[in-house]
Amino acid sequence: MDRRSFLRTSALGGTAAAASTLAAPAYAQGKRTLTMVTTWGRGLAGVHDSAQYVAESITAMSDGNLTVDLKAAGELVGAFEVFDAVTAGQADMYHGADYYFTGQHPGYAYFTAVPFGMTPQEITNWYYHGEGQALHDELGQIFGLKSFIGGNTGPQSGGWFNKEIKGPEDFNGLKFRMPGLGGKALGKLGASVQNIPGSEVYQALSSGAIDGTEWIGPWADEKAGFQEITKTYYTAGFHEPGAALSVATNRDVFDSLSPAHQKIIEMASAAGHQWSLSQFMNNNGAALQRLQSGGVKTLEFPDSVWDAFGKATKETLDEFMGDELFAKIRNSVEASMKASSGWITKSEGAYRVQRDRVLG
Amino acid sequence: MDRRSFLRTSALGGTAAAASTLAAPAYAQGKRTLTMVTTWGRGLAGVHDSAQYVAESITAMSDGNLTVDLKAAGELVGAFEVFDAVTAGQADMYHGADYYFTGQHPGYAYFTAVPFGMTPQEITNWYYHGEGQALHDELGQIFGLKSFIGGNTGPQSGGWFNKEIKGPEDFNGLKFRMPGLGGKALGKLGASVQNIPGSEVYQALSSGAIDGTEWIGPWADEKAGFQEITKTYYTAGFHEPGAALSVATNRDVFDSLSPAHQKIIEMASAAGHQWSLSQFMNNNGAALQRLQSGGVKTLEFPDSVWDAFGKATKETLDEFMGDELFAKIRNSVEASMKASSGWITKSEGAYRVQRDRVLG
Repeated sequence: MDRRSFLRTSALGGTAAAASTLAAPAYAQGKRTLTMVTTWGRGLAGVHDSAQYVAESITAMSDGNLTVDLKAAGELVGAFEVFDAVTAGQADMYHGADYYFTGQHPGYAYFTAVPFGMTPQEITNWYYHGEGQALHDELGQIFGLKSFIGGNTGPQSGGWFNKEIKGPEDFNGLKFRMPGLGGKALGKLGASVQNIPGSEVYQALSSGAIDGTEWIGPWADEKAGFQEITKTYYTAGFHEPGAALSVATNRDVFDSLSPAHQKIIEMASAAGHQWSLSQFMNNNGAALQRLQSGGVKTLEFPDSVWDAFGKATKETLDEFMGDELFAKIRNSVEASMKASSGWITKSEGAYRVQRDRVLG
Repeated sequence: MDRRSFLRTSALGGTAAAASTLAAPAYAQGKRTLTMVTTWGRGLAGVHDSAQYVAESITAMSDGNLTVDLKAAGELVGAFEVFDAVTAGQADMYHGADYYFTGQHPGYAYFTAVPFGMTPQEITNWYYHGEGQALHDELGQIFGLKSFIGGNTGPQSGGWFNKEIKGPEDFNGLKFRMPGLGGKALGKLGASVQNIPGSEVYQALSSGAIDGTEWIGPWADEKAGFQEITKTYYTAGFHEPGAALSVATNRDVFDSLSPAHQKIIEMASAAGHQWSLSQFMNNNGAALQRLQSGGVKTLEFPDSVWDAFGKATKETLDEFMGDELFAKIRNSVEASMKASSGWITKSEGAYRVQRDRVLG
C-alpha cells in the first residue's frame, strides 16, 4: 500500500472512479436487488444480527423495491475481501468493521474504533453532529464508497488470556488476536499480533495457534465459546471503547438510486447503529453473570499495563500522522471527544455515582 | 381521570377504539399528508429539531407519498393538548414528551423519564431489546395510539435557582418548574411545583412567577436564555437521567398505512432518538463552557439533597403501584436497569476512568 497515492487522489478532489473502474451494473427501473457482503460469519452473535437488521429494514421500508440480499462471510467473498469486492462492483454493499481496512487507508480505523478513542455516545456526537460523516465521505471518495455507521458493539472487553497479566512485560511474545490500531499498539509491547476473522478465532485459540484473543464482550464472547478454552477474562479494554460497524455502498450504485432509496439506506444504517449497540449492552450484563457462575475469573488490567497501553497507543497513532487525511481525522476526533466528554462525566457520570450511592 | 377504567380496558385486551371514537379519515390511495402536532414551540432548541428530523425523514424516505406536516405547539393545538388531539383524530401524530401525559396514565412517565431512572443507553437496551416497546404498545392500546421513542435530551441538568441549595429544607416553599414524576417527588420536599410548557418558562422565571426551573441541559438552557435571569446552575439532576421523546400516531391512522410506511415511521423515530440524543450531548460541552465564561456558577447538590430526592422518589413511585400496568412497567424498567447497568460500569465506566487517568 502506498498511502501517498491516496493523498494525491484526495488532494485532486478524488473522483469516485479511482478504485472503481467497473461501471455500475444497469438496473431495471422497478425492483432492484442489492447484494450485501459482510465481514461476519452467518449467525455470529450481534454483528451478523446488525447486518441482517439493516438489510431487512431497507427491504421493508422500500416495500421490496430495494431488496437486500445478505451474503455472510464466505458465501460470496471472504470476510476481509468485502472492501475490494464493493469498490470493484462485485458486490453492491458491505456491512463490516472498517478497521479491517486500515491497509487500504489507516483513517478507516476511526470509523470502527481506535485505542483510547471514543465511547459510543462520543462517536454519534461526532458522526452526526460533528465532522464524522463528512470525513467518512472524504475517505469514501478515494475508494468509490458511500459509507454510514450501521452497528456498534459497545465498549469491548480486554479479552481472554491463557495466563494472568501482571505487567506490560507479560505481553512479550504473546500470540494475541487483536485487529486495528489496538493490535498495532499491542505489537509495541512485544506481542505477536494476529488479525483473524471472528468466525475463525475459536479454532485458533483452541488449537493454541494463539495464546489469547479479544473478541467483543460477554454476550458475543460467550456465544463464541471462549470460556470453554480459558477462564481468565479481562473486562475493560483499551483498544475498542465503542466499535462502530459500517454499511458501505459502491458509490456508483448509490448514486444511481433515487433520493428516497438513498435516504432509506442512510436511516436503516443509523437505526441499525443504535439497535445493535443496545443489543450488545442489553445482553452483556446477564452473560457476564453466567460466565462468572461458570467459573470464569474476571479481572482488570493493573495501572502499569494501562500506562503501557497509553504509551504504545500514542506511538502508534503518531506514526500515521504523515498522512494528511489520517491527521485530519485524528485531530477532528480528539477535538470532538475533548469537547463532549466533559459534560458526559458531569451529567451522566455524576448521576450514576449518586444513583448507585442512593439506591445502594 | 379514573385509572381503573384504563385497567379494565387493558384487561379486556383493549381495542384501539376505546379513546378514539372518531373513525380515521379516508385518505386517497396515493400521496397522503399526516399532521404532526408537537409539545414544542417552533424552533425550540433540540426538541423541535428532533420533531423536524423525524417528520422530514418520513417524508424523504416515502418519496413524499407520506408527507408529514409539522405543527409546532400553538399552531394547531396547545403543547399539552397534543395527546387528546391525536387520540381523538384531530391530528394524526404527535412528537412530545410522554411524561406530560401522566394525567392520562401514570405509566407514560417511564417513556420519557422517571427520577432515579434509566440513562439513555439503559432506555434503548430496554426499549429495543427488553420489554419497552411492548409496554409502550400496551399503553397505546388503551388510548388508540401507536408510539415509538423518537428523541432524547440526554441526562438533564439539576436546574436554575435564585439561591443556592444547601439542604433539602431549601426546597420548602420554592416555586419550581419540573414536569413528570420528578416534579411530584419535589413536591414532597415542600416545593410548589409548576408544569409549564418550555416556550413559557423564560417568561415565568423572568417575572418571578417561579423561583427556579429545570429545562434540559447547557445547550438548550443557554438558548432559552435562563443565564440572563440567574447565575446559579446545578449540573447533575435526579429527575430526568435521559428523557426520551415520543412519536405517537393515531392507531387507526397507523393501521391504515402500508407495512412499508409503518416501517418508515418506526425507523425514522428510532434514528431520531439517536440523532437527537447526540445533538444534545454534542452541544452541551461547549455550551457549558460559554455559560461558565459568562459568569454562571455551576454546582452539585450535596449528598443530603440527593438522599432526600431518593426518599421522595420512592414514595412517589410507590403511590402509583395500585395501578397494575404502572407496576408492570416499573418492575420491568427496574429489572432491566439492574441487569444492564452493572456491565456499563464495568466496561465504559472503567474505561473512562483509565482514559482520564492515562491521557490526563
